[in-house]
Amino acid sequence: MTESDLPVVDFHPYRWGDPAHRTTLPAAAKETLAAFGVRTPEHPPLDPAGLVLPEPALDAKLLAELAGLLGPGQVATDAAARVGHTRGWSTPDLLKLRAGDVSDAPDAVLYPGSHEQVVAVLELCEHANVAVVPYSGGTSVVGGLAPQRAGFAGVVALDLKRLDAVLAVDEESRTATLQAGLRGVEAERLLRERGLTLGHFPQSYEGASIGGYAAARSAGQASAGYGRFDEMVVGLELATPRGTLALGSAPKSAAGPDLRQLVLGSEGTLGVITSVTVRVRPVPAERVYEGWRFDSFEAGAAALRKLVQDGPLPTVLRLSDEAETSINLADPAAMFGGGPGGCLAIAGYEGSAAEVAARRAGASELLAAAGGQPLGTEPGEAWRHGRYRAPYLRDPLLDEGVLIETLETVTFWSSLHALRAAVTSALSETLSAEGTPPLVLCHISHVYETGASLYFTVACAQTDDPVAQWQRAKSAANEAIRQVGAAVTHHHGVGTDHREVYAREVGPLAVDALRAVKRALDPAGILNPGVLIAPAPNNATTTDGTDGTTTTDGTDATPASEG
Amino acid sequence: MTESDLPVVDFHPYRWGDPAHRTTLPAAAKETLAAFGVRTPEHPPLDPAGLVLPEPALDAKLLAELAGLLGPGQVATDAAARVGHTRGWSTPDLLKLRAGDVSDAPDAVLYPGSHEQVVAVLELCEHANVAVVPYSGGTSVVGGLAPQRAGFAGVVALDLKRLDAVLAVDEESRTATLQAGLRGVEAERLLRERGLTLGHFPQSYEGASIGGYAAARSAGQASAGYGRFDEMVVGLELATPRGTLALGSAPKSAAGPDLRQLVLGSEGTLGVITSVTVRVRPVPAERVYEGWRFDSFEAGAAALRKLVQDGPLPTVLRLSDEAETSINLADPAAMFGGGPGGCLAIAGYEGSAAEVAARRAGASELLAAAGGQPLGTEPGEAWRHGRYRAPYLRDPLLDEGVLIETLETVTFWSSLHALRAAVTSALSETLSAEGTPPLVLCHISHVYETGASLYFTVACAQTDDPVAQWQRAKSAANEAIRQVGAAVTHHHGVGTDHREVYAREVGPLAVDALRAVKRALDPAGILNPGVLIAPAPNNATTTDGTDGTTTTDGTDATPASEG
Repeated sequence: MTESDLPVVDFHPYRWGDPAHRTTLPAAAKETLAAFGVRTPEHPPLDPAGLVLPEPALDAKLLAELAGLLGPGQVATDAAARVGHTRGWSTPDLLKLRAGDVSDAPDAVLYPGSHEQVVAVLELCEHANVAVVPYSGGTSVVGGLAPQRAGFAGVVALDLKRLDAVLAVDEESRTATLQAGLRGVEAERLLRERGLTLGHFPQSYEGASIGGYAAARSAGQASAGYGRFDEMVVGLELATPRGTLALGSAPKSAAGPDLRQLVLGSEGTLGVITSVTVRVRPVPAERVYEGWRFDSFEAGAAALRKLVQDGPLPTVLRLSDEAETSINLADPAAMFGGGPGGCLAIAGYEGSAAEVAARRAGASELLAAAGGQPLGTEPGEAWRHGRYRAPYLRDPLLDEGVLIETLETVTFWSSLHALRAAVTSALSETLSAEGTPPLVLCHISHVYETGASLYFTVACAQTDDPVAQWQRAKSAANEAIRQVGAAVTHHHGVGTDHREVYAREVGPLAVDALRAVKRALDPAGILNPGVLIAPAPNNATTTDGTDGTTTTDGTDATPASEG
Repeated sequence: MTESDLPVVDFHPYRWGDPAHRTTLPAAAKETLAAFGVRTPEHPPLDPAGLVLPEPALDAKLLAELAGLLGPGQVATDAAARVGHTRGWSTPDLLKLRAGDVSDAPDAVLYPGSHEQVVAVLELCEHANVAVVPYSGGTSVVGGLAPQRAGFAGVVALDLKRLDAVLAVDEESRTATLQAGLRGVEAERLLRERGLTLGHFPQSYEGASIGGYAAARSAGQASAGYGRFDEMVVGLELATPRGTLALGSAPKSAAGPDLRQLVLGSEGTLGVITSVTVRVRPVPAERVYEGWRFDSFEAGAAALRKLVQDGPLPTVLRLSDEAETSINLADPAAMFGGGPGGCLAIAGYEGSAAEVAARRAGASELLAAAGGQPLGTEPGEAWRHGRYRAPYLRDPLLDEGVLIETLETVTFWSSLHALRAAVTSALSETLSAEGTPPLVLCHISHVYETGASLYFTVACAQTDDPVAQWQRAKSAANEAIRQVGAAVTHHHGVGTDHREVYAREVGPLAVDALRAVKRALDPAGILNPGVLIAPAPNNATTTDGTDGTTTTDGTDATPASEG
């Protein structure tokens, strides 16, 4: 099986992925959970089909205009469509929906069929003061689909699923122009027909789309070999309420700042990315994935650092800590079943047979010299085949009363262990203080010459208010990240969940700069309000010509007027 | 000799580089020039020491405040300092200074000694409505040091030469924090003491500085192996009139847009970069540079494309066309002396002995399979040793009455030959129409998986107005670049020379976005006014709260008031 053989999945509103892959917990796991004090919740999750929504807050004239613009059946106000576009895939998002909280549901879901229709929708919504949530895969885990409703006449989700074409393939330049609503799985399938691959395989691969990869600055599991998504993008088209911004006249240039890198990661707040031109590569002739065992996380991390700094670098490179290694998330059937102990590293090689052989030989020599013990291809192939299965565990765990969530960060190598210790302590201490001591697992999944990401999985018994319980743990983790000076997210994004800590990370001048760009492209502030940066206190500028939002010392000023 | 053995050079106001390396033309070259209709100019260039400048336009109170802030001797208003900071190193810049035109001279030169002093200077200058030109190496070839004076009480050059420290080296993370005024040569020397290198060797290496590399998005000759400067930067500190913007909490992240890439390439218009944290690498144990001959530019370009797309990739990879190959700019003594014919490619390998051997073997096999004939290390070493010598030829050629200048661009592989043909035709036709048919040389010096740069050298007889002569040729080349859809500059930057064509390349929304960021960080618009983007018609915002510069259809609107 390769990535392009996976089905494109329409997710259940609160159950992850392909129904055929949904899983239950083994009896052994349930016994372990009981030992952790986990109790099955008193109320099972509500059926989303039975949820009652308020009437859409949009006036009939606007709905008729939108229907006239987009054509029959492309404006949905039924409950199923609205519930299906409510929030994303963080554990708090799922818990809220399980409890019947649909307060963030959009008033309508729009399905534009072209870039020009997106521009026209934005102009209409700006005129009607309606907030617009760009929606492609809908897999945000940071509150990126729950914008601020206050101050707007309504909220619409702009679902890009009809923008699902491969617009162009340039085999000589090895680029492909892909529309934003194209699902990752489908993009791989279409590219594979030309012998090409994007090589971008995030954990959300079964559900995510090209536009989301770009807007949220995604990083796939094979980032060591294929690069991050922001490194693949050489061009993009952005629809804004003021028209079109098209960027990418060359792979790289000195023609001013790289504005592509301003749009990538803007999370739908500056405009709607409707297509991207990405670097593609030939489908690899060979793939070999292997496991290596290290005695400690420190020894494994040192080996990964050596590989990325001195090479040769595998296509996939990751390292689980002792706890994650013992639990083996990639193989639910074997959960808690033990294993080789120590820390499991996965090194995967993709390319031509000669290239794979050469890189594998060089990297294996280095890994062995760094204290790694080769475990052969079995754990590597098990990881590769199980790589999309871990998220399926969350639903049955939530059913059983487990609070389970992930968070991730990234720093320079010299701060990596301090960061891991600080975040682990923050999570453990906060949740233990609530009477729910957690299990904290950690792995490195993305490496750079100068640093690496850390990905944490946290599990404990739910209290009576698991959303608040997690928020306290997450806040403590964010503080720990700030203390070390690391980035608050490596690939999940900012959304609304990270907005305040992100503002502290980049500082008030950076927020002012972003707000200024937003004002230039989206003067009424209708695009994803409250995502990434706090909305300006008033949408329009104040009478003295300043925006009235931030003083030179970075503190919030009282706006001169409310727009 | 390695790069860190080169001297740090203080350039003559209009003669390039180290006086010890200044060169004269061989007799054979002079004969060839005569055949091209070149006549020695009637008036030799004026001695810069004799140029008379107007009195500085700054009031005594401001000068006293600046002197109080920066300390004794750190505010210069003498003619030598002002002439020495007048414009940069384009041929028009040199021709103007040779003719005694010092109209772009700053009123004063300031030498701040710390980041905090830079912030304080910007605050003082904002208050006094004085334009500030950030200056590090002073090697701009695109008018980046000739900002618009209109609307300001005066212009000061902010020379960062005292900010010349290595602030930190993190050997585990392989990063170094370098101040902006540190010269490239000196940075290499200091890093080499730790066994490290930046690997950034642009043509301007003898004169350029770290801050300029960052502000102008520089690319060095070894970019295939070490990356572009914008790829090396993991952190930076920017001084603005509103305070400090510090970026770079991690190598890469999903914490919003990559704002480092908004500052890189901003050419001093958003703030003054006072330090950068860059990825460094070990000094290579081995270097091998080789020459390869291709029958045609097309065959050579195909081979380079194959190397960068399928690897292994050399550290340095370049290809001269037939004309450049025959002239051999790297070895002035052999100019016009013939050679192997065809097109010369240089492939350089740096790294450990094993790595160099492996990459060289793989790349050589591929080059040979692509039709390349190996020429051995002699042409490669000749290029490596002569790589900084070509610019020294310009001064004696200008002395003799030759108009000589370069320009560069970058596009995707599938457009490369169309771009080369279009630019060559534009230059040839325009200059031939003036009665001065040119010699046009071209090379590829930077390769990417999806495209490559093209670098042109143009030489012809000067007319009576060589500045206007060149401007017409350059405009025609820019139009050709726009027609193909390529970028107007690969590594020279935008400055004032490319500003209008850059605005057409990125479009009015991009210009609005940049102008909005500038307004957020530099509300009075004192930083390099007119560089990169046209200044807003009025520095302040208008009474209706809009900036009054651009309407939604991208046309210029009449400002409501002049600030």
